[in-house]
Amino acid sequence: MDNKELIPLFEDNFPFWNKLSDYDKETLLASSQKVQFPKGMNIHDGNTCTGVILVRTGSLRLYMLSEDGKEITLYRIFPGEMCILSASCVLQTVTFDVFVDSEENSDCVVVGGCAYEAIARRLPEAKIFALESAVSRFSDVMWVMQQILFMSMDKRLAIFLLDETSKNQSDTVRLTHEQIAKYMGSAREVVSRMLKYFAAEGIVSVSISDGIKLIDRKRLRELAL
Amino acid sequence: MDNKELIPLFEDNFPFWNKLSDYDKETLLASSQKVQFPKGMNIHDGNTCTGVILVRTGSLRLYMLSEDGKEITLYRIFPGEMCILSASCVLQTVTFDVFVDSEENSDCVVVGGCAYEAIARRLPEAKIFALESAVSRFSDVMWVMQQILFMSMDKRLAIFLLDETSKNQSDTVRLTHEQIAKYMGSAREVVSRMLKYFAAEGIVSVSISDGIKLIDRKRLRELAL
Repeated sequence: MDNKELIPLFEDNFPFWNKLSDYDKETLLASSQKVQFPKGMNIHDGNTCTGVILVRTGSLRLYMLSEDGKEITLYRIFPGEMCILSASCVLQTVTFDVFVDSEENSDCVVVGGCAYEAIARRLPEAKIFALESAVSRFSDVMWVMQQILFMSMDKRLAIFLLDETSKNQSDTVRLTHEQIAKYMGSAREVVSRMLKYFAAEGIVSVSISDGIKLIDRKRLRELAL
Repeated sequence: MDNKELIPLFEDNFPFWNKLSDYDKETLLASSQKVQFPKGMNIHDGNTCTGVILVRTGSLRLYMLSEDGKEITLYRIFPGEMCILSASCVLQTVTFDVFVDSEENSDCVVVGGCAYEAIARRLPEAKIFALESAVSRFSDVMWVMQQILFMSMDKRLAIFLLDETSKNQSDTVRLTHEQIAKYMGSAREVVSRMLKYFAAEGIVSVSISDGIKLIDRKRLRELAL
Protein backbone atom coordinates (compact mmCIF):
# COMPACT_ATOMS: atom_id res chain seq x y z
CA MET A 1 0.00 0.00 0.00
CA ASP A 2 1.36 3.43 -0.98
CA ASN A 3 1.56 6.19 1.59
CA LYS A 4 0.71 3.82 4.41
CA GLU A 5 2.13 6.30 6.91
CA LEU A 6 -0.74 8.67 6.09
CA ILE A 7 -3.37 6.31 7.56
CA PRO A 8 -3.37 7.89 11.06
CA LEU A 9 -3.77 11.37 9.49
CA PHE A 10 -6.70 10.19 7.38
CA GLU A 11 -8.28 8.47 10.37
CA ASP A 12 -8.09 11.76 12.25
CA ASN A 13 -9.34 13.96 9.43
CA PHE A 14 -11.88 11.87 7.55
CA PRO A 15 -14.69 10.72 9.85
CA PHE A 16 -15.76 8.27 7.15
CA TRP A 17 -12.34 6.56 6.89
CA ASN A 18 -13.41 3.34 8.62
CA LYS A 19 -16.42 2.95 6.34
CA LEU A 20 -14.27 2.94 3.21
CA SER A 21 -13.62 -0.33 1.42
CA ASP A 22 -9.99 -1.42 1.30
CA TYR A 23 -9.98 -0.56 -2.35
CA ASP A 24 -11.18 3.00 -1.68
CA LYS A 25 -8.70 3.41 1.15
CA GLU A 26 -5.93 2.50 -1.26
CA THR A 27 -7.31 4.82 -3.93
CA LEU A 28 -7.31 7.75 -1.54
CA LEU A 29 -3.81 7.00 -0.22
CA ALA A 30 -2.36 6.48 -3.69
CA SER A 31 -3.81 9.79 -4.91
CA SER A 32 -2.25 11.70 -2.02
CA GLN A 33 0.98 13.64 -1.93
CA LYS A 34 2.99 15.02 0.92
CA VAL A 35 3.99 18.56 -0.02
CA GLN A 36 6.00 21.25 1.72
CA PHE A 37 4.76 24.64 0.62
CA PRO A 38 7.27 27.42 1.24
CA LYS A 39 6.03 30.61 2.89
CA GLY A 40 4.25 32.92 0.45
CA MET A 41 3.67 30.35 -2.29
CA ASN A 42 0.42 30.39 -4.22
CA ILE A 43 -1.05 26.90 -3.92
CA HIS A 44 -4.40 27.23 -5.61
CA ASP A 45 -5.53 29.81 -8.14
CA GLY A 46 -9.22 29.35 -8.67
CA ASN A 47 -9.40 27.64 -12.02
CA THR A 48 -8.02 24.19 -11.35
CA CYS A 49 -8.92 21.34 -9.04
CA THR A 50 -5.90 21.31 -6.77
CA GLY A 51 -7.42 18.74 -4.43
CA VAL A 52 -8.34 18.49 -0.78
CA ILE A 53 -5.51 20.01 1.26
CA LEU A 54 -4.86 18.79 4.80
CA VAL A 55 -2.65 21.08 6.86
CA ARG A 56 -0.19 19.39 9.24
CA THR A 57 1.99 22.36 10.18
CA GLY A 58 2.02 26.03 9.18
CA SER A 59 -1.06 27.80 7.83
CA LEU A 60 -2.82 28.60 4.58
CA ARG A 61 -4.76 31.71 3.68
CA LEU A 62 -7.82 31.60 1.45
CA TYR A 63 -8.82 34.82 -0.30
CA MET A 64 -10.76 36.43 -3.11
CA LEU A 65 -8.87 38.38 -5.74
CA SER A 66 -10.15 41.22 -7.91
CA GLU A 67 -9.07 41.89 -11.46
CA ASP A 68 -6.84 44.73 -10.29
CA GLY A 69 -5.18 42.58 -7.66
CA LYS A 70 -7.09 43.61 -4.54
CA GLU A 71 -7.36 40.80 -2.02
CA ILE A 72 -9.85 40.00 0.69
CA THR A 73 -8.85 37.33 3.18
CA LEU A 74 -11.81 35.03 3.81
CA TYR A 75 -10.26 32.69 6.35
CA ARG A 76 -7.15 30.80 7.35
CA ILE A 77 -6.59 27.07 7.56
CA PHE A 78 -4.57 25.78 10.48
CA PRO A 79 -3.00 22.43 11.43
CA GLY A 80 -5.66 19.76 11.77
CA GLU A 81 -7.95 21.61 9.35
CA MET A 82 -8.75 21.01 5.73
CA CYS A 83 -9.19 23.11 2.60
CA ILE A 84 -12.10 21.81 0.57
CA LEU A 85 -12.80 24.81 -1.70
CA SER A 86 -9.59 23.96 -3.57
CA ALA A 87 -11.22 20.69 -4.68
CA SER A 88 -13.64 22.08 -7.22
CA CYS A 89 -14.30 18.69 -8.80
CA VAL A 90 -15.70 17.50 -5.46
CA LEU A 91 -17.97 20.54 -5.12
CA GLN A 92 -19.48 21.04 -8.55
CA THR A 93 -21.94 23.61 -7.27
CA VAL A 94 -19.13 25.96 -6.24
CA THR A 95 -18.72 28.31 -9.18
CA PHE A 96 -16.63 31.09 -7.69
CA ASP A 97 -12.85 31.37 -7.66
CA VAL A 98 -10.81 31.45 -4.51
CA PHE A 99 -7.08 31.61 -4.07
CA VAL A 100 -4.94 29.86 -1.48
CA ASP A 101 -1.43 30.84 -0.37
CA SER A 102 0.78 29.30 2.27
CA GLU A 103 1.44 31.92 4.90
CA GLU A 104 4.23 30.04 6.57
CA ASN A 105 6.33 27.09 5.53
CA SER A 106 3.55 24.51 5.65
CA ASP A 107 3.59 20.73 5.66
CA CYS A 108 0.50 19.55 3.85
CA VAL A 109 -1.03 16.49 2.31
CA VAL A 110 -2.90 17.04 -0.93
CA VAL A 111 -5.54 14.42 -1.64
CA GLY A 112 -6.40 14.13 -5.32
CA GLY A 113 -9.72 15.78 -6.11
CA CYS A 114 -10.73 13.12 -8.64
CA ALA A 115 -10.02 10.28 -6.23
CA TYR A 116 -12.02 11.99 -3.51
CA GLU A 117 -14.85 12.64 -5.92
CA ALA A 118 -14.96 9.02 -7.04
CA ILE A 119 -15.14 7.88 -3.43
CA ALA A 120 -17.79 10.46 -2.58
CA ARG A 121 -19.95 8.98 -5.33
CA ARG A 122 -19.74 5.58 -3.66
CA LEU A 123 -19.88 6.65 -0.01
CA PRO A 124 -22.48 9.33 0.87
CA GLU A 125 -20.66 10.07 4.15
CA ALA A 126 -17.64 11.27 2.19
CA LYS A 127 -19.84 13.54 0.08
CA ILE A 128 -21.65 14.87 3.16
CA PHE A 129 -18.33 15.54 4.90
CA ALA A 130 -17.06 17.62 1.99
CA LEU A 131 -20.31 19.56 1.66
CA GLU A 132 -20.56 20.22 5.39
CA SER A 133 -17.00 21.55 5.42
CA ALA A 134 -17.90 23.93 2.59
CA VAL A 135 -21.12 25.09 4.27
CA SER A 136 -19.30 25.72 7.53
CA ARG A 137 -16.76 27.90 5.67
CA PHE A 138 -19.75 29.69 4.11
CA SER A 139 -20.52 30.85 7.65
CA ASP A 140 -16.96 32.16 8.14
CA VAL A 141 -17.16 34.04 4.87
CA MET A 142 -20.53 35.58 5.74
CA TRP A 143 -19.06 36.86 8.98
CA VAL A 144 -16.20 38.59 7.15
CA MET A 145 -18.65 40.05 4.63
CA GLN A 146 -20.99 41.29 7.31
CA GLN A 147 -18.15 43.09 9.10
CA ILE A 148 -16.88 44.67 5.92
CA LEU A 149 -20.20 45.60 4.37
CA PHE A 150 -22.23 46.67 7.32
CA MET A 151 -20.24 47.66 10.28
CA SER A 152 -16.96 48.66 8.69
CA MET A 153 -15.78 47.26 11.99
CA ASP A 154 -12.29 46.83 10.59
CA LYS A 155 -12.18 50.53 9.77
CA ARG A 156 -13.78 51.62 13.01
CA LEU A 157 -11.47 49.51 15.13
CA ALA A 158 -8.42 50.72 13.15
CA ILE A 159 -9.42 54.33 13.77
CA PHE A 160 -10.02 53.63 17.44
CA LEU A 161 -6.62 51.95 17.94
CA LEU A 162 -4.77 54.74 16.11
CA ASP A 163 -6.59 57.40 18.12
CA GLU A 164 -5.90 55.71 21.42
CA THR A 165 -2.21 55.15 20.79
CA SER A 166 -1.66 58.68 19.53
CA LYS A 167 -3.54 60.06 22.54
CA ASN A 168 -1.31 58.08 24.92
CA GLN A 169 1.84 58.40 22.80
CA SER A 170 2.33 54.67 23.08
CA ASP A 171 2.23 51.61 20.85
CA THR A 172 -0.07 49.78 23.17
CA VAL A 173 -3.75 49.96 24.05
CA ARG A 174 -4.41 48.76 27.60
CA LEU A 175 -8.14 48.36 27.55
CA THR A 176 -10.26 45.24 27.79
CA HIS A 177 -12.24 44.14 24.74
CA GLU A 178 -15.34 44.93 26.77
CA GLN A 179 -14.17 48.52 27.31
CA ILE A 180 -13.29 48.99 23.65
CA ALA A 181 -16.69 47.61 22.64
CA LYS A 182 -18.34 50.14 24.94
CA TYR A 183 -16.35 53.05 23.50
CA MET A 184 -17.23 51.92 19.99
CA GLY A 185 -20.89 51.12 20.64
CA SER A 186 -20.31 47.53 19.62
CA ALA A 187 -20.32 44.11 21.29
CA ARG A 188 -17.39 42.50 23.06
CA GLU A 189 -17.62 39.40 20.82
CA VAL A 190 -17.32 41.55 17.72
CA VAL A 191 -14.28 43.41 19.04
CA SER A 192 -12.60 40.17 20.16
CA ARG A 193 -13.18 38.52 16.83
CA MET A 194 -11.92 41.52 14.89
CA LEU A 195 -8.82 41.78 17.08
CA LYS A 196 -8.19 38.09 16.44
CA TYR A 197 -8.47 38.86 12.73
CA PHE A 198 -6.06 41.81 13.03
CA ALA A 199 -3.64 39.61 14.99
CA ALA A 200 -3.82 36.87 12.35
CA GLU A 201 -3.06 39.52 9.72
CA GLY A 202 -0.01 40.61 11.72
CA ILE A 203 -1.45 44.08 12.30
CA VAL A 204 -1.51 43.87 16.09
CA SER A 205 -0.45 41.43 18.77
CA VAL A 206 -2.83 40.68 21.61
CA SER A 207 -1.83 39.36 25.01
CA ILE A 208 -3.34 39.48 28.45
CA SER A 209 -0.18 40.86 30.07
CA ASP A 210 0.74 43.45 27.43
CA GLY A 211 -2.63 44.48 25.99
CA ILE A 212 -3.02 45.26 22.30
CA LYS A 213 0.25 46.21 20.63
CA LEU A 214 0.28 47.89 17.21
CA ILE A 215 2.70 46.10 14.91
CA ASP A 216 1.80 47.27 11.41
CA ARG A 217 0.77 50.89 11.78
CA LYS A 218 0.89 51.41 8.00
CA ARG A 219 -1.80 48.82 7.33
CA LEU A 220 -3.87 50.14 10.19
CA ARG A 221 -3.74 53.58 8.62
CA GLU A 222 -4.82 52.14 5.29
CA LEU A 223 -7.76 50.42 6.96
CA ALA A 224 -8.70 53.68 8.67
CA LEU A 225 -8.97 55.62 5.39
CA MET B 1 -52.38 10.41 4.16
CA ASP B 2 -52.32 14.16 4.90
CA ASN B 3 -51.50 16.64 2.16
CA LYS B 4 -51.64 13.95 -0.49
CA GLU B 5 -52.04 16.62 -3.17
CA LEU B 6 -48.47 17.78 -2.45
CA ILE B 7 -46.96 14.53 -3.75
CA PRO B 8 -46.39 15.77 -7.33
CA LEU B 9 -44.70 18.91 -5.97
CA PHE B 10 -42.40 16.84 -3.75
CA GLU B 11 -41.62 14.48 -6.62
CA ASP B 12 -40.56 17.49 -8.69
CA ASN B 13 -38.56 19.22 -5.99
CA PHE B 14 -36.97 16.44 -3.96
CA PRO B 15 -34.82 14.18 -6.14
CA PHE B 16 -34.75 11.66 -3.28
CA TRP B 17 -38.54 11.39 -2.98
CA ASN B 18 -38.79 7.92 -4.50
CA LYS B 19 -36.12 6.56 -2.15
CA LEU B 20 -38.10 7.54 0.95
CA SER B 21 -39.92 4.87 2.92
CA ASP B 22 -43.69 5.24 3.04
CA TYR B 23 -43.34 6.28 6.66
CA ASP B 24 -40.89 9.06 5.79
CA LYS B 25 -43.07 10.22 2.90
CA GLU B 26 -45.95 10.56 5.32
CA THR B 27 -43.76 12.34 7.86
CA LEU B 28 -42.66 14.90 5.28
CA LEU B 29 -46.20 15.45 3.98
CA ALA B 30 -47.69 15.72 7.46
CA SER B 31 -45.09 18.32 8.49
CA SER B 32 -45.86 20.50 5.47
CA GLN B 33 -48.13 23.49 5.22
CA LYS B 34 -49.50 25.36 2.26
CA VAL B 35 -49.05 29.05 2.98
CA GLN B 36 -49.92 32.20 1.06
CA PHE B 37 -47.47 34.92 1.97
CA PRO B 38 -48.75 38.41 1.16
CA LYS B 39 -46.41 40.80 -0.65
CA GLY B 40 -43.87 42.41 1.67
CA MET B 41 -44.29 39.98 4.54
CA ASN B 42 -41.24 38.89 6.53
CA ILE B 43 -41.21 35.10 6.44
CA HIS B 44 -37.96 34.25 8.15
CA ASP B 45 -35.90 36.35 10.54
CA GLY B 46 -32.67 34.54 11.15
CA ASN B 47 -33.10 33.09 14.59
CA THR B 48 -35.70 30.40 14.11
CA CYS B 49 -35.96 27.28 12.00
CA THR B 50 -38.79 28.27 9.70
CA GLY B 51 -38.39 25.18 7.53
CA VAL B 52 -37.67 24.39 3.91
CA ILE B 53 -39.73 26.74 1.75
CA LEU B 54 -40.83 25.64 -1.72
CA VAL B 55 -42.02 28.49 -3.94
CA ARG B 56 -44.97 27.69 -6.24
CA THR B 57 -45.88 31.22 -7.40
CA GLY B 58 -44.50 34.68 -6.62
CA SER B 59 -40.97 35.22 -5.34
CA LEU B 60 -39.01 35.49 -2.11
CA ARG B 61 -36.03 37.70 -1.37
CA LEU B 62 -33.21 36.58 0.90
CA TYR B 63 -31.06 39.28 2.48
CA MET B 64 -28.61 40.20 5.23
CA LEU B 65 -29.62 42.85 7.71
CA SER B 66 -27.34 45.09 9.74
CA GLU B 67 -28.08 46.32 13.24
CA ASP B 68 -29.05 49.71 11.89
CA GLY B 69 -31.45 48.23 9.36
CA LYS B 70 -29.30 48.29 6.23
CA GLU B 71 -30.14 45.44 3.85
CA ILE B 72 -28.16 43.61 1.21
CA THR B 73 -30.11 41.37 -1.14
CA LEU B 74 -28.24 38.09 -1.60
CA TYR B 75 -30.58 36.36 -4.02
CA ARG B 76 -34.19 35.73 -4.97
CA ILE B 77 -36.11 32.48 -4.95
CA PHE B 78 -38.49 31.88 -7.83
CA PRO B 79 -41.23 29.33 -8.60
CA GLY B 80 -39.78 25.83 -8.75
CA GLU B 81 -36.95 26.81 -6.40
CA MET B 82 -36.39 26.18 -2.74
CA CYS B 83 -35.18 28.14 0.27
CA ILE B 84 -32.94 25.96 2.41
CA LEU B 85 -31.14 28.60 4.52
CA SER B 86 -34.41 29.13 6.39
CA ALA B 87 -34.12 25.57 7.72
CA SER B 88 -31.33 26.09 10.22
CA CYS B 89 -31.98 22.79 11.97
CA VAL B 90 -31.17 20.96 8.73
CA LEU B 91 -27.93 22.90 8.26
CA GLN B 92 -26.31 22.99 11.67
CA THR B 93 -23.06 24.35 10.26
CA VAL B 94 -24.80 27.52 9.05
CA THR B 95 -24.27 30.02 11.85
CA PHE B 96 -25.16 33.30 10.17
CA ASP B 97 -28.54 34.99 10.09
CA VAL B 98 -30.43 35.64 6.90
CA PHE B 99 -33.84 37.18 6.40
CA VAL B 100 -36.50 36.21 3.90
CA ASP B 101 -39.39 38.39 2.69
CA SER B 102 -42.05 37.64 0.12
CA GLU B 103 -41.67 40.14 -2.68
CA GLU B 104 -44.99 39.37 -4.28
CA ASN B 105 -48.03 37.50 -3.10
CA SER B 106 -46.44 34.06 -3.02
CA ASP B 107 -47.93 30.58 -2.81
CA CYS B 108 -45.49 28.43 -0.90
CA VAL B 109 -45.23 25.10 0.84
CA VAL B 110 -43.27 25.11 4.07
CA VAL B 111 -41.79 21.73 4.97
CA GLY B 112 -41.07 21.35 8.68
CA GLY B 113 -37.35 21.67 9.41
CA CYS B 114 -37.39 19.00 12.11
CA ALA B 115 -39.16 16.50 9.87
CA TYR B 116 -36.68 17.16 7.08
CA GLU B 117 -33.78 16.84 9.47
CA ALA B 118 -35.06 13.50 10.82
CA ILE B 119 -35.36 12.18 7.29
CA ALA B 120 -31.93 13.51 6.32
CA ARG B 121 -30.46 11.50 9.17
CA ARG B 122 -31.97 8.32 7.72
CA LEU B 123 -31.45 9.05 4.02
CA PRO B 124 -28.05 10.50 3.03
CA GLU B 125 -29.49 11.65 -0.32
CA ALA B 126 -31.82 14.04 1.51
CA LYS B 127 -28.90 15.43 3.51
CA ILE B 128 -26.76 15.79 0.39
CA PHE B 129 -29.58 17.55 -1.44
CA ALA B 130 -29.96 20.13 1.33
CA LEU B 131 -26.20 20.72 1.58
CA GLU B 132 -25.76 21.01 -2.18
CA SER B 133 -28.55 23.57 -2.33
CA ALA B 134 -26.79 25.59 0.36
CA VAL B 135 -23.39 25.36 -1.35
CA SER B 136 -24.88 26.44 -4.65
CA ARG B 137 -26.37 29.52 -2.97
CA PHE B 138 -22.92 30.15 -1.48
CA SER B 139 -21.81 30.73 -5.07
CA ASP B 140 -24.61 33.26 -5.67
CA VAL B 141 -23.68 35.11 -2.51
CA MET B 142 -20.00 35.22 -3.43
CA TRP B 143 -20.90 36.79 -6.75
CA VAL B 144 -22.86 39.56 -5.05
CA MET B 145 -20.04 40.11 -2.57
CA GLN B 146 -17.42 40.24 -5.28
CA GLN B 147 -19.35 42.89 -7.18
CA ILE B 148 -19.92 45.00 -4.10
CA LEU B 149 -16.48 44.68 -2.54
CA PHE B 150 -14.21 44.77 -5.51
CA MET B 151 -15.72 46.37 -8.49
CA SER B 152 -18.35 48.55 -6.91
CA MET B 153 -19.98 47.60 -10.19
CA ASP B 154 -23.40 48.55 -8.83
CA LYS B 155 -22.14 52.03 -8.05
CA ARG B 156 -20.23 52.39 -11.29
CA LEU B 157 -23.14 51.22 -13.41
CA ALA B 158 -25.55 53.47 -11.51
CA ILE B 159 -23.32 56.49 -12.16
CA PHE B 160 -22.99 55.54 -15.81
CA LEU B 161 -26.75 55.19 -16.33
CA LEU B 162 -27.48 58.50 -14.56
CA ASP B 163 -24.80 60.29 -16.59
CA GLU B 164 -26.04 58.87 -19.88
CA THR B 165 -29.68 59.74 -19.31
CA SER B 166 -28.91 63.23 -18.08
CA LYS B 167 -26.64 63.77 -21.10
CA ASN B 168 -29.41 62.68 -23.48
CA GLN B 169 -32.24 64.17 -21.41
CA SER B 170 -34.05 60.86 -21.65
CA ASP B 171 -35.11 58.02 -19.37
CA THR B 172 -33.61 55.42 -21.63
CA VAL B 173 -30.11 54.26 -22.47
CA ARG B 174 -29.89 52.83 -25.97
CA LEU B 175 -26.55 51.10 -25.86
CA THR B 176 -25.71 47.42 -26.00
CA HIS B 177 -24.31 45.75 -22.91
CA GLU B 178 -21.10 45.33 -24.90
CA GLN B 179 -20.90 49.08 -25.51
CA ILE B 180 -21.57 49.89 -21.88
CA ALA B 181 -18.90 47.43 -20.79
CA LYS B 182 -16.43 49.14 -23.12
CA TYR B 183 -17.26 52.60 -21.76
CA MET B 184 -16.86 51.30 -18.21
CA GLY B 185 -13.74 49.23 -18.78
CA SER B 186 -15.58 46.11 -17.71
CA ALA B 187 -16.78 42.87 -19.32
CA ARG B 188 -20.10 42.40 -21.12
CA GLU B 189 -21.02 39.47 -18.83
CA VAL B 190 -20.55 41.64 -15.76
CA VAL B 191 -22.70 44.45 -17.18
CA SER B 192 -25.43 42.01 -18.25
CA ARG B 193 -25.52 40.32 -14.89
CA MET B 194 -25.61 43.61 -13.01
CA LEU B 195 -28.40 44.93 -15.26
CA LYS B 196 -30.33 41.73 -14.56
CA TYR B 197 -29.79 42.42 -10.87
CA PHE B 198 -30.98 46.04 -11.26
CA ALA B 199 -34.03 44.81 -13.20
CA ALA B 200 -34.86 42.27 -10.49
CA GLU B 201 -34.61 45.09 -7.96
CA GLY B 202 -37.07 47.16 -10.01
CA ILE B 203 -34.47 49.86 -10.64
CA VAL B 204 -34.46 49.54 -14.43
CA SER B 205 -36.30 47.59 -17.08
CA VAL B 206 -34.34 45.99 -19.87
CA SER B 207 -35.73 45.07 -23.27
CA ILE B 208 -34.25 44.57 -26.71
CA SER B 209 -36.68 46.97 -28.37
CA ASP B 210 -36.63 49.75 -25.78
CA GLY B 211 -33.13 49.50 -24.32
CA ILE B 212 -32.50 50.17 -20.64
CA LYS B 213 -35.20 52.26 -19.03
CA LEU B 214 -34.67 53.92 -15.64
CA ILE B 215 -37.59 53.16 -13.35
CA ASP B 216 -36.35 54.00 -9.86
CA ARG B 217 -34.08 57.01 -10.26
CA LYS B 218 -34.04 57.63 -6.52
CA ARG B 219 -32.46 54.26 -5.74
CA LEU B 220 -30.04 54.68 -8.60
CA ARG B 221 -28.92 57.97 -7.11
CA GLU B 222 -28.46 56.31 -3.73
CA LEU B 223 -26.33 53.61 -5.32
CA ALA B 224 -24.26 56.26 -7.08
CA LEU B 225 -23.34 58.05 -3.83
